[in-house]
Amino acid sequence: MTKTPMTTLTGDVLHRALGGLAGWALAGDGQRISKTFRFPDFSVAFAFMTRVALAAERMNHHPDWSNSYDRVEITLTSHDARGLTARDVELASRIDRIAADHATPSRG
Amino acid sequence: MTKTPMTTLTGDVLHRALGGLAGWALAGDGQRISKTFRFPDFSVAFAFMTRVALAAERMNHHPDWSNSYDRVEITLTSHDARGLTARDVELASRIDRIAADHATPSRG
Amino acid sequence: MTKTPMTTLTGDVLHRALGGLAGWALAGDGQRISKTFRFPDFSVAFAFMTRVALAAERMNHHPDWSNSYDRVEITLTSHDARGLTARDVELASRIDRIAADHATPSRG
Amino acid sequence: MTKTPMTTLTGDVLHRALGGLAGWALAGDGQRISKTFRFPDFSVAFAFMTRVALAAERMNHHPDWSNSYDRVEITLTSHDARGLTARDVELASRIDRIAADHATPSRG
Repeated sequence: MTKTPMTTLTGDVLHRALGGLAGWALAGDGQRISKTFRFPDFSVAFAFMTRVALAAERMNHHPDWSNSYDRVEITLTSHDARGLTARDVELASRIDRIAADHATPSRG
Repeated sequence: MTKTPMTTLTGDVLHRALGGLAGWALAGDGQRISKTFRFPDFSVAFAFMTRVALAAERMNHHPDWSNSYDRVEITLTSHDARGLTARDVELASRIDRIAADHATPSRG
Repeated sequence: MTKTPMTTLTGDVLHRALGGLAGWALAGDGQRISKTFRFPDFSVAFAFMTRVALAAERMNHHPDWSNSYDRVEITLTSHDARGLTARDVELASRIDRIAADHATPSRG
Repeated sequence: MTKTPMTTLTGDVLHRALGGLAGWALAGDGQRISKTFRFPDFSVAFAFMTRVALAAERMNHHPDWSNSYDRVEITLTSHDARGLTARDVELASRIDRIAADHATPSRG
């Protein structure tokens, strides 16, 4: 499963794409987006992570993420393209749908 | 973490315990209880299984279970006691609470 | 990710395909293959299941499987084709590679 | 499952405890220990994380950790004791045993 090369999103295109995502903050000079999710406890947080892992493996596009008990912070970027691509927007959108099933996500 | 030996539940005590659990069917001459859960897809089913795995490991009491795509069938028994014990009732109750977070469980 | 329709494997083609797989037993009139794996404990068994879940989601082809503590029994079939297809052979082969990383698989 | 209060490890006691652990670096004025593990790919890294999650839930003591594809960085501390306790040393030791099953861990 080779990844097709992707164009980085910049300027208006990037801002329109981010407009469809709630709570994802642009960071690193527009090269990454991040969001923090909170859950009732570790078990729910890890089940959320398992679903994100399945989605990531299916897309062959993986997050940079950290977890501390009930909190999961996710950063998305396309390392190969050195910036944000349609792949990141698509994964962010799937992550939001997964989070909606588990608990009320919050920005921090 | 050694398990303390447990008494099997029988007769009225067993029926009172099962009365607190919805949808668990007694099987094997009263030695096991079973329930089937259905979820929207494989990803949700496997996230549910991950939470049950965490609960089982925490209790050091594990289910006999099977999965086929969106369906998870769980059987509980206390192998060491050759029957049902308070441990099974407790795990069944935790599983029901987990399932309630994920989707509407159904008997089949 | 729609699945492309697949031809069922039968006769010589099926037997050659199974020849490349160790320990998978043909069942159900040649419509399914099954294998049982054993691990040191529940934790290792469930980590193996997690890797199989990731592989299955990536292929969009999922196993019918059961687990009891340190034992995982896997059955593969292509429900849509009502028989075995190249997809099952490919997933069986990936499962064997995953099991080789975790512990010595056994047939029973 | 309430946690019993624990004494923080300091001075010689801490150094003896860390002496039994390979590759864990002391950080934050001796309040935390960290180690980075690398695996062949995301699937193996996430299976390792699943086993650590099971161990953590069993101990009711959870790591602060991050993952980026094949790399997992783990930091342990006892938030309630504001420092390192026997719980962290025990979890670090279990994590090392788990990592040994999966791949060669490395410090970075």
